[in-house]
Amino acid sequence: MPGPLTIAIDAMGGDHGPQTVVPGCALARDRRPETRFVLFGDEALIRPQLDQYPKLAAVCEVEHTDVAIRMDDKPSQALRKGRWRSSMWLALDAVRSGRAALAVSAGNTGALMAMSKFCLRTLAGVERPAIAAIWPTMRGESVVLDVGATIGSDANQLVDFAVMGEAMARAVFGIDRPTVGLLNIGVEEVKGLEMIKEAGRILRNSQLPMHYAGFVEGNDIGKGTVDVVVTEGFTGNIALKTAEGTAKQMAEYLRSAMNRSVLSRIGYLFAKSAFDTLRAKMDPRKVNGGVFLGLNGIVIKSHGGADAEGFASAVTLGRDIAANDLIAKITDDLEHYRRDQDLNVRIAGDIAS
Amino acid sequence: MPGPLTIAIDAMGGDHGPQTVVPGCALARDRRPETRFVLFGDEALIRPQLDQYPKLAAVCEVEHTDVAIRMDDKPSQALRKGRWRSSMWLALDAVRSGRAALAVSAGNTGALMAMSKFCLRTLAGVERPAIAAIWPTMRGESVVLDVGATIGSDANQLVDFAVMGEAMARAVFGIDRPTVGLLNIGVEEVKGLEMIKEAGRILRNSQLPMHYAGFVEGNDIGKGTVDVVVTEGFTGNIALKTAEGTAKQMAEYLRSAMNRSVLSRIGYLFAKSAFDTLRAKMDPRKVNGGVFLGLNGIVIKSHGGADAEGFASAVTLGRDIAANDLIAKITDDLEHYRRDQDLNVRIAGDIAS
Repeated sequence: MPGPLTIAIDAMGGDHGPQTVVPGCALARDRRPETRFVLFGDEALIRPQLDQYPKLAAVCEVEHTDVAIRMDDKPSQALRKGRWRSSMWLALDAVRSGRAALAVSAGNTGALMAMSKFCLRTLAGVERPAIAAIWPTMRGESVVLDVGATIGSDANQLVDFAVMGEAMARAVFGIDRPTVGLLNIGVEEVKGLEMIKEAGRILRNSQLPMHYAGFVEGNDIGKGTVDVVVTEGFTGNIALKTAEGTAKQMAEYLRSAMNRSVLSRIGYLFAKSAFDTLRAKMDPRKVNGGVFLGLNGIVIKSHGGADAEGFASAVTLGRDIAANDLIAKITDDLEHYRRDQDLNVRIAGDIAS
Repeated sequence: MPGPLTIAIDAMGGDHGPQTVVPGCALARDRRPETRFVLFGDEALIRPQLDQYPKLAAVCEVEHTDVAIRMDDKPSQALRKGRWRSSMWLALDAVRSGRAALAVSAGNTGALMAMSKFCLRTLAGVERPAIAAIWPTMRGESVVLDVGATIGSDANQLVDFAVMGEAMARAVFGIDRPTVGLLNIGVEEVKGLEMIKEAGRILRNSQLPMHYAGFVEGNDIGKGTVDVVVTEGFTGNIALKTAEGTAKQMAEYLRSAMNRSVLSRIGYLFAKSAFDTLRAKMDPRKVNGGVFLGLNGIVIKSHGGADAEGFASAVTLGRDIAANDLIAKITDDLEHYRRDQDLNVRIAGDIAS
């Protein structure tokens, strides 16, 4: 992509609005200097923040709007009051019009997804968008999707998720042939999961260059058994939040174990740099950012409670994805896959006739 | 219950059979002296083990059978080859006949569940059994069910799980009014989860003395927000395995951080007792044992890869549950609940007419 890339920012999203969004953008600019920003929101709140970051201010426009979506607005409320004029909508609309390469918001997930679908529309042939998370594993990082965009998916939607997640893994991790697994449970002769088995059959028989590795179980996510874990949104959301809860629990066990005695506190001081490394590895801010896939444009959802560091991670993640032409990759792969499916259907028809 | 309680043991289950099962029973006998055992399996393999534990041998009968279910037998295969005569079946049949108060097996879950349903039958009015896990949390322990007995549940089955899980929490944790939550995702206006919402409505309006606390999310499990977390088997299994995977991942991060430098290794030595405490807290063997609920008898599934310590945990858990009359508690509660539902239906009928 020639010239600097422009990022549209919903400055009013998240628990702290411009107070964390602006410093977050400043950090992101330091890390990816070839970037421009458009901040949408209440100028009276944004400007004082921006004055503290002259380097950011130099590459940043501000577009004022009074309307902001609240963290507890329901998607339908958000659409009613925020369409055409909220900071969230305007950021998305900048992507739709081509003014920005991506939009980042720390606003509420349901509202952002509803507005994204309305403003950007889904890619041709994609029924449902997905939210992809980058999940730290024992082998590095994996893409896990869907972590909560929609509830329930049929086999074809799971296959779409696999195609989109694989393209994202190539764009984000820079690997040629990521491995893809379908999340399932370890019981033989399972019932009621026909759609997962059917998605497995489609992926196995497909002529896509995708490296489909079969079913994986819950514990395979943390192991990093595959680069892309595909699941339906309800299960994916439960898995993501359960892992977050467990990580917090382990950190709490560790903290209280280290405070138990004078000796353990002395030990802690000796081992401090090791603990700092550990904390960095467990730092959820470093992998902040859900990626909305399946839309005509890139939208990144930052965690509502994230600090400036977390928001910066979301922005740089989105920037790298946009710089890698993710939408073009996904569109190509989906077209390739549909042609392949049509061919299979035609061959099956020829054989039948 | 007068006199010592008898436990039926499938001595051939698990990755190592009698080699871990017998030492596990010996540990359990030390912890709960008022216990008798019947071991089912290959006597030629069991006897040499038993000779090393004379105190166990003194309270233990052995019943020989040649037939053992393999860890990779499918449920249908297991039923075909193992009904009436496998060590797994005979242990269950000892519960059915009243000879034993519970059965413990480390054999494969699918086979054990299929045989349990066939041999013990479900409780009157219970369509589907559930597997309950005891989940370590930041506040202690919680009961989570179903973690994989069956896939997909309607609202009434979720309510049954809530009733059974609550009775189990009372029996195992010795608390009067455990709190109960339904596992859900944090999106407003969710679709396709009508059965969870409907189960919530039933529990909220019920005259049961149950303390229903509403919906909980994945991260609430590890927090210990409620004493009983109710979910359908597919999601519960994914959550359980994802948490296991995350705990392993954190332990691995810690291990590699502590080995990073000479200083951190010295620190580790100073803090060793703290780390031992931590390891004990994170020790999956200590909470080993899935409890099959909804059957005419208590069946405990120990992890196939568990060592003697893990198997002993499963045995003592089951023993404590049996000593607390869990089946009677569940039967009472379910009856209470059904009367209550009938009354509601009649009242609704009166109002309508």
